[in-house]
Amino acid sequence: MSSQIYLPLHPTGDTKNLDVVIQGEQTPDILAEKSGVWIQSAGSAMLAPGSYEIIPADHCLWLAAEYGEMEFTWQKTNFPILTNECLILPPHVEGAVINNKEDVKLLWFTLSGPLANDFLQSMNALSHMPVRQGMLPSQVMLMQQIVQVMVRHSGTSNSSFQLQQLLWSMIAAHAGQPVAMNATLSHEISRVVDALRANNYSDNFSLAEMADISRVPVETFRKRFVSEVGIPPLSYLQFCKMERAKTLLRQGISVREVGVAIGMSDPYHFSKQFKRVVGMSPTAYLKHVDGANRKRAKRRSRRSLEE
Amino acid sequence: MSSQIYLPLHPTGDTKNLDVVIQGEQTPDILAEKSGVWIQSAGSAMLAPGSYEIIPADHCLWLAAEYGEMEFTWQKTNFPILTNECLILPPHVEGAVINNKEDVKLLWFTLSGPLANDFLQSMNALSHMPVRQGMLPSQVMLMQQIVQVMVRHSGTSNSSFQLQQLLWSMIAAHAGQPVAMNATLSHEISRVVDALRANNYSDNFSLAEMADISRVPVETFRKRFVSEVGIPPLSYLQFCKMERAKTLLRQGISVREVGVAIGMSDPYHFSKQFKRVVGMSPTAYLKHVDGANRKRAKRRSRRSLEE
Repeated sequence: MSSQIYLPLHPTGDTKNLDVVIQGEQTPDILAEKSGVWIQSAGSAMLAPGSYEIIPADHCLWLAAEYGEMEFTWQKTNFPILTNECLILPPHVEGAVINNKEDVKLLWFTLSGPLANDFLQSMNALSHMPVRQGMLPSQVMLMQQIVQVMVRHSGTSNSSFQLQQLLWSMIAAHAGQPVAMNATLSHEISRVVDALRANNYSDNFSLAEMADISRVPVETFRKRFVSEVGIPPLSYLQFCKMERAKTLLRQGISVREVGVAIGMSDPYHFSKQFKRVVGMSPTAYLKHVDGANRKRAKRRSRRSLEE
Repeated sequence: MSSQIYLPLHPTGDTKNLDVVIQGEQTPDILAEKSGVWIQSAGSAMLAPGSYEIIPADHCLWLAAEYGEMEFTWQKTNFPILTNECLILPPHVEGAVINNKEDVKLLWFTLSGPLANDFLQSMNALSHMPVRQGMLPSQVMLMQQIVQVMVRHSGTSNSSFQLQQLLWSMIAAHAGQPVAMNATLSHEISRVVDALRANNYSDNFSLAEMADISRVPVETFRKRFVSEVGIPPLSYLQFCKMERAKTLLRQGISVREVGVAIGMSDPYHFSKQFKRVVGMSPTAYLKHVDGANRKRAKRRSRRSLEE
């Protein structure tokens, strides 16, 4: 996988190999893509003392020193980057070099989309040359979260919306707006959420089975789940099942099959639960979705006639 | 001001006046607007028992019951909306009515932009008729934050990025992604941040003056500021001053004037501080910004020649 992912640094001369800790790439959700700016890839690395070339990229690159001090050189520009400072590079910058005499822990992400440049401009970065920037502690924590989320969901669009949230948080923090810093779940709870999602909510996990996945005693698990997610595990599963059902119904799958797909093989039970949560029966929901599709198709064909 | 703001509800028949608690409207930042979807307005209201007409709007409307139970009626559709449930209405829905026998605390926001519909579709809402949806506790808290932020900055674009962050958090939560819940500052600290921003960072507030604004003893203030913002008050002020300076320099204001504008009337002192933080002198920064503008202008004129 790592060969497909853009790695921003390359050791030069006698420098020992770059110790890449983690990295990942995102396939943005269609909505995130339409919004014009998204995080393409992110990672963290340990830089042993030495010299590193920054590889020119098609994307804007954002590099931060989580700790340690390095020196940045590009053409006649030359400045230090200290702990909690970052470097923002526009695309296609060639010949930029980092030198460090001590270990440096690096965080980085790349930004894609037609609005990427506007985004950086809003943070006072320059569009044609590297610029150094102080970072607020909240921004450093956001970068750590971006890397963490990216690695956990690498290559998928599963975390697109969360990454969009983190991206807007970066700029909100820059603009002096408060942002939250605890946007990630603990490993124990995220294991369960990931398992439910990977299963497409088709199995009826019991509380004991979920606790098993999290490797935490049942009662502790329930309490921690409530405190982190804000809702009991079984209610959360029910919520996800119904959202999954709506998505499947919209894809044209029959009510009976949708029921089976989310682990409710009794169609009567499924319809009742659906109606309780959504406010109408699956059949009524389907009719309304169809109506909307037909309306939209009609509008589209009318529009194309008018053009 | 309230006459310019879209108010989603209107009491009918014998119903006593609607007790609107708070509401506000946003002028989105240019970047938020370009991204295609943003929160237009938000508010909260107490509904005394009675009957209320939902006024048709140009925007998508999102209504949630923070507590209390109401009944929703539109054409042949009829369903209850319970505590922590929400109602999503596409634009131009006419004749929708809410009836409640008990007090209901309502939260609402409206969504604008060409992507608003895609946004709602991603949350399984319907594009041509009202739909009811269960809400996760994190989403209810996000709605409370949206209202709080909107009211604090009503009519401005000051909080655009934070609102974008909250908006993407809504959908991230819906998609099963963890989101943070403590994105707002306390009243004491936000008073200070607001005062600094209103002042455009031109005064050199001392720690004692800031504590005065927050109405908290100095040492308590310093500790709380660090714990909420993540950085000491004076470092934060310094960070904001330099970002303000960059913005002013880009607007073509002279180095001397920029120094004065951010409370550093000694140009030598200003240049030194700027270089320490930004990595180059204000003059060098200006030259680079100018270079970028010229390049962009050249590219634009070349493009228009080619067309």
